[in-house]
Amino acid sequence: MSVNNIGLGNIRIVLIETSHPGNIGAVARAMMTMGLTDLCLINPAHFPDKQATAMASGADVLLSQATVVSSLHKAIADCHTVIGTSARNQRSVQWPLMDARACGEFVAKRSVANKIAIVFGRESSGLSNEELEACQFLVSIPVNPDFSSLNIAAAVQVISYECSVALNSFQQESSGSEEFTASLATSLDVEAFYQQLESTLIGIRYLDPDEPRLLMRKLRCLYGRTQLTKPELGILRGVLTATMGSKFIPRKQR
Amino acid sequence: MSVNNIGLGNIRIVLIETSHPGNIGAVARAMMTMGLTDLCLINPAHFPDKQATAMASGADVLLSQATVVSSLHKAIADCHTVIGTSARNQRSVQWPLMDARACGEFVAKRSVANKIAIVFGRESSGLSNEELEACQFLVSIPVNPDFSSLNIAAAVQVISYECSVALNSFQQESSGSEEFTASLATSLDVEAFYQQLESTLIGIRYLDPDEPRLLMRKLRCLYGRTQLTKPELGILRGVLTATMGSKFIPRKQR
Repeated sequence: MSVNNIGLGNIRIVLIETSHPGNIGAVARAMMTMGLTDLCLINPAHFPDKQATAMASGADVLLSQATVVSSLHKAIADCHTVIGTSARNQRSVQWPLMDARACGEFVAKRSVANKIAIVFGRESSGLSNEELEACQFLVSIPVNPDFSSLNIAAAVQVISYECSVALNSFQQESSGSEEFTASLATSLDVEAFYQQLESTLIGIRYLDPDEPRLLMRKLRCLYGRTQLTKPELGILRGVLTATMGSKFIPRKQR
Repeated sequence: MSVNNIGLGNIRIVLIETSHPGNIGAVARAMMTMGLTDLCLINPAHFPDKQATAMASGADVLLSQATVVSSLHKAIADCHTVIGTSARNQRSVQWPLMDARACGEFVAKRSVANKIAIVFGRESSGLSNEELEACQFLVSIPVNPDFSSLNIAAAVQVISYECSVALNSFQQESSGSEEFTASLATSLDVEAFYQQLESTLIGIRYLDPDEPRLLMRKLRCLYGRTQLTKPELGILRGVLTATMGSKFIPRKQR
């Protein structure tokens, strides 16, 4: 496999509140064997740590390069696509769910031109509902239903492997079609749009602020799935600004 | 995925002289998440061991069921196909080499009717040349050429994952063609054939016993690749017996 792979450099592995530092090291090793380099840690229990370095087994460079941040929104601010890992999809709103193979192919098609975060939750409890809302897609690894306890580094290994295999085969087959190189809006920009959307919906009394969550989740799910481009986001925000502007135009001036 | 998968039960993971007991536990966990259950250990440095149990993280049943043997030939005696894992294929004789995906598809097609061993070498040095000779095929996981240090449990995870994915898709698509359900000879039977072949070749002075290895390796490679059925093996052994018999028939009786 080629190590000078543009797409691999655009894949960020995000770990949320990892409790065992050995797992962070094992994740770094798993990533590096597959050519991934961008590791982001959200509030790790212990880091840096001797156990992490020991389990990295030579992939220390990924640990020293890793960024440590305090929230998921900071971890994904510059990413265009955010994929959450989940053992199940039993939420009230169905996020688009891919298996690991489909995720690899999806990432291969998009990572040449866009930055992609793949988010792994806590060892014990995975991703919270709020963290799920920051994701546009979910990926799950098909496991034995009677023993689904994948170690977090093993899960990173399988997902990284699928991304790497798919990127190599995609870059051999394709010179990149326009569909996949479109310039997508970043999470930061899309988040600002959601804030504006929510306040606008409250402003026009379509959304009750005392029970706001389910509606916004459905809308996040809808827009997340479409993968908004920058120009599209500009249009949507323009519509919201116009909506609020028109609301406060005195009746007689209309 | 279905856990009642006949093929998965016919896949044996063989670990040779594992030095870290934690790795044995992590392998058991990796196997069980993918529905594999048959683990065979050849001369493990420490087993049973607390670290193995801790790293199995609930997959203890695989450890208590695991068989411990003293040689590779004992580990694979009842297997019809033996696949060795290798980071490289730089030997004088080229074994048929598959990547992990092709290995999964290969195993899926054969494991419904035949027992398959997938052999993982030592953490430090992999498989010896002699151990390679017991394999008919090699599998390698495509890795970053600048950092190819896959943990053994991570390698088992990827291979088990590929087998499980392929078996599920194969069993959905196919009812099993005759090609794949043919009754193959076991390793024990094939090994006896190789012994007979070698002594026959020495007997007919085709093989110099002072430099026997390369020729036998080439022949093992050839027959291994064909995956001999039981009736075919009977024919070949019959030919060898006839060859030696004819050699000692006094000239006048011919």
